[in-house]
Amino acid sequence: MATGPPVRPTPIPGTTFSQSDSQDCWQHHGHAFLYSHPYFRTVLFDIIRTMTYEAAADHLAHLGQDFHRRGWALGTSGNFSAVIEREPLRLAITASSVDKGRLTAGQILEVDSAGRGMEAMPGKPSAETLLHLAVVRVTGAGAVLHTHSVWSTILSDYHNGRGGFFIEGYEMLKGLEGIGTHEHREWVPILENSQDMRALAAETEALLRENSRLHGFLIRRHGLYTWGKDLTEAARHVEILEFLLESVGRRQMMEPQY
Amino acid sequence: MATGPPVRPTPIPGTTFSQSDSQDCWQHHGHAFLYSHPYFRTVLFDIIRTMTYEAAADHLAHLGQDFHRRGWALGTSGNFSAVIEREPLRLAITASSVDKGRLTAGQILEVDSAGRGMEAMPGKPSAETLLHLAVVRVTGAGAVLHTHSVWSTILSDYHNGRGGFFIEGYEMLKGLEGIGTHEHREWVPILENSQDMRALAAETEALLRENSRLHGFLIRRHGLYTWGKDLTEAARHVEILEFLLESVGRRQMMEPQY
Amino acid sequence: MATGPPVRPTPIPGTTFSQSDSQDCWQHHGHAFLYSHPYFRTVLFDIIRTMTYEAAADHLAHLGQDFHRRGWALGTSGNFSAVIEREPLRLAITASSVDKGRLTAGQILEVDSAGRGMEAMPGKPSAETLLHLAVVRVTGAGAVLHTHSVWSTILSDYHNGRGGFFIEGYEMLKGLEGIGTHEHREWVPILENSQDMRALAAETEALLRENSRLHGFLIRRHGLYTWGKDLTEAARHVEILEFLLESVGRRQMMEPQY
Amino acid sequence: MATGPPVRPTPIPGTTFSQSDSQDCWQHHGHAFLYSHPYFRTVLFDIIRTMTYEAAADHLAHLGQDFHRRGWALGTSGNFSAVIEREPLRLAITASSVDKGRLTAGQILEVDSAGRGMEAMPGKPSAETLLHLAVVRVTGAGAVLHTHSVWSTILSDYHNGRGGFFIEGYEMLKGLEGIGTHEHREWVPILENSQDMRALAAETEALLRENSRLHGFLIRRHGLYTWGKDLTEAARHVEILEFLLESVGRRQMMEPQY
Repeated sequence: MATGPPVRPTPIPGTTFSQSDSQDCWQHHGHAFLYSHPYFRTVLFDIIRTMTYEAAADHLAHLGQDFHRRGWALGTSGNFSAVIEREPLRLAITASSVDKGRLTAGQILEVDSAGRGMEAMPGKPSAETLLHLAVVRVTGAGAVLHTHSVWSTILSDYHNGRGGFFIEGYEMLKGLEGIGTHEHREWVPILENSQDMRALAAETEALLRENSRLHGFLIRRHGLYTWGKDLTEAARHVEILEFLLESVGRRQMMEPQY
Repeated sequence: MATGPPVRPTPIPGTTFSQSDSQDCWQHHGHAFLYSHPYFRTVLFDIIRTMTYEAAADHLAHLGQDFHRRGWALGTSGNFSAVIEREPLRLAITASSVDKGRLTAGQILEVDSAGRGMEAMPGKPSAETLLHLAVVRVTGAGAVLHTHSVWSTILSDYHNGRGGFFIEGYEMLKGLEGIGTHEHREWVPILENSQDMRALAAETEALLRENSRLHGFLIRRHGLYTWGKDLTEAARHVEILEFLLESVGRRQMMEPQY
Repeated sequence: MATGPPVRPTPIPGTTFSQSDSQDCWQHHGHAFLYSHPYFRTVLFDIIRTMTYEAAADHLAHLGQDFHRRGWALGTSGNFSAVIEREPLRLAITASSVDKGRLTAGQILEVDSAGRGMEAMPGKPSAETLLHLAVVRVTGAGAVLHTHSVWSTILSDYHNGRGGFFIEGYEMLKGLEGIGTHEHREWVPILENSQDMRALAAETEALLRENSRLHGFLIRRHGLYTWGKDLTEAARHVEILEFLLESVGRRQMMEPQY
Repeated sequence: MATGPPVRPTPIPGTTFSQSDSQDCWQHHGHAFLYSHPYFRTVLFDIIRTMTYEAAADHLAHLGQDFHRRGWALGTSGNFSAVIEREPLRLAITASSVDKGRLTAGQILEVDSAGRGMEAMPGKPSAETLLHLAVVRVTGAGAVLHTHSVWSTILSDYHNGRGGFFIEGYEMLKGLEGIGTHEHREWVPILENSQDMRALAAETEALLRENSRLHGFLIRRHGLYTWGKDLTEAARHVEILEFLLESVGRRQMMEPQY
């Protein structure tokens, strides 16, 4: 009789994303995870690690509220996205000008690879959608988070003349994907801020092509961009980098010549 | 048959204000929004964007507790108001000497254009009611919020000799109403503190008439005044300005000559 | 017929103290408030503003948890008391060595005017009970709160050589009982720390007798003592003084010569 | 008839650990507390103060979430353990690479005296398990907590050249087990960071053998290790030491020559 690989139960697409299972969201959410056979796993990987729009919207709303509470996305600052389809590329992304402390799933829009919103949805995509798309295109990230903390703001100004700065020797660097030791020098580049999003997206793309090992970058007096293969990894990168920026900033204030 | 403009359902005045619909509170609350015809919208705008006393009291109590939790209105410091009628002018405003961490709607009073409380209400209006009225009169604001954070307190002292300071080049400035680029120089004037509220209100009025593009000002060693067309906008201005004051203050400590 | 003053309903002594009615706790709690006649109010005032042990224990447990959450009573640091009888003097006070983050009403002990615990109660009164009694005796306070924040700790060390420091010109000073203007110079004395509680209590008593207008004092590298006519006023003094200490500390770091 | 010591009710091993009774957890949890006779108390002490795996896992998960909320265990940083058996030695310890903000009891593993996980359990023990074992072996601690705050990170870097620093004269030192006065000089040694866990564990063991009165140590740019006879005492040591590190750090920034 039929002897194909064993069939696993297909999760219902778009079921609500819950915190506790975020680490295997690629299993429970998004397009069906049809077979557990290794061959299919590899082939399907890029597809299955994406999320449905509904799951992404729930997770993004939760992250926005959490970041607001921690002072990293006050007012309408910050914007957050997740890839929900690779071919053709589609992102779930925060709408423009919404209060992150009260962010709801209904304020997450779906955009295409040119940053255009889907027709049936109200609201305007975030002005910085083009930057999110640039990060996704070059790094292959599944999620992009832009926060706007006090420490990222002032360090992006202080070190602006040198185009960036190194974070080196901190154990916390191991929280960045692919870093296995504190004996690592992480370059944190700084882009000059601009309201010309096409120009800034092009600069972002160039920056990331030249520096393939970055985990984030700053925009001057504007904050942090970081990313990850999924929202869980990207959110961890926010925590790690915000911790490192505060540590580097306070360390320097303790000994100005440092 | 009758062919007037289409009738929209009239919201019940004074329904409880809830967080999620604050952005269109002028639609749901306050005096009835009778018709959607553009002509009426323009004529009625000033009226409809005001709130009922009950809705304002609920929102103000919520804001007071939130600001207390964030360290911006400790003890009995801070006072908060919203316009509830334009002609004749009436404000809902926090009573004098109440603990903002436990602020209730019952501690919000109604005052007239001279700052006198309505007869039937217990409690004394905040001593700074005259400043709120001055801000409303000159700017046309629908809400005025006065917070008292550590950073506003110390910057208002540090820069006092120069009468104020500029905040310039920060992306977060775009959170202020009418500012569309970080390439903006926001003047933050500082008034000398006084217990003579008539004199301070007159100074406030003069200051705002001379500087029509301000979004807030400081009183020396006393804190921040900001405002907005409604409580949601004014609360966003508090978050934005408190973030900017902390950033400017820490930036300066990192490099004293800055 | 009988024409004495009108009888008001007598509250049941020891009913649970709730947050919302703390400002008139002297009406609702403690010994019966028998008559509203002004003569009785004056005569009875000292008695009626005290609380029952049960009401005090509930309020103190709540304050301990709140101060722990705000970093002002970490570990087993801090101790808090309220007068529950004037003649003979009895205090409700935190037991020694209890974790303030999990403080319960059961960890509040009753002590007499010599600091001895009541026989039936388990646990040992706080080692600093004698200081609380000294404050109550000299100032007539109804509640004494000792917190242990980072800012009170470091300022009590920095200014130790001068025996104290002034806080002057801050609007927030008006949150201290009896202060009606920012044009006030509040002296914050610093006592050298000691484990000899009899000696430290005697120094406290001498300090308070010489300076009858103090609202609080520091013990070097140990923290803040403040008080009030009841727990609500004393808790407000904690908030006000902690805010002022942080402001003065940060102001000074911004400009070391300050 | 039989006249042995009176039998006390035997608690059911592995009942869920609750916050409120943590101070006598050695009575309620872990192996049965059979007799109250002093002789048995002494003999059984080492056994009875250990916890069951289930109780330890619940308490560790709770601590991880609390430390994450306070910024002491962001991302996957920090690791926490408790002794669940002395002979042979077994620890409950956090699994490697888990998010401490969402730590669950299911992410706590059981390891033996060589740091090997029990067979039936999924997940890998924390890479720093060998350090926890070294601390337990030398100090006899019942619990070991490693946090990773901003202040421990930067002080471990600032003072690295001298191999450590003293914390002296602070009242809060009395929160450390066995310290009864502020007139105490606590040495806080700093170990150079390393990814060679065998080497670092050996250094830890040597350090603790030479300095039998330590309550904690730092690893450079990596954070704090502290311990206690049980999780409650170890958690108090975290609070106390984090407070002292912040105080010492800020004190020094107020007066650099200090």
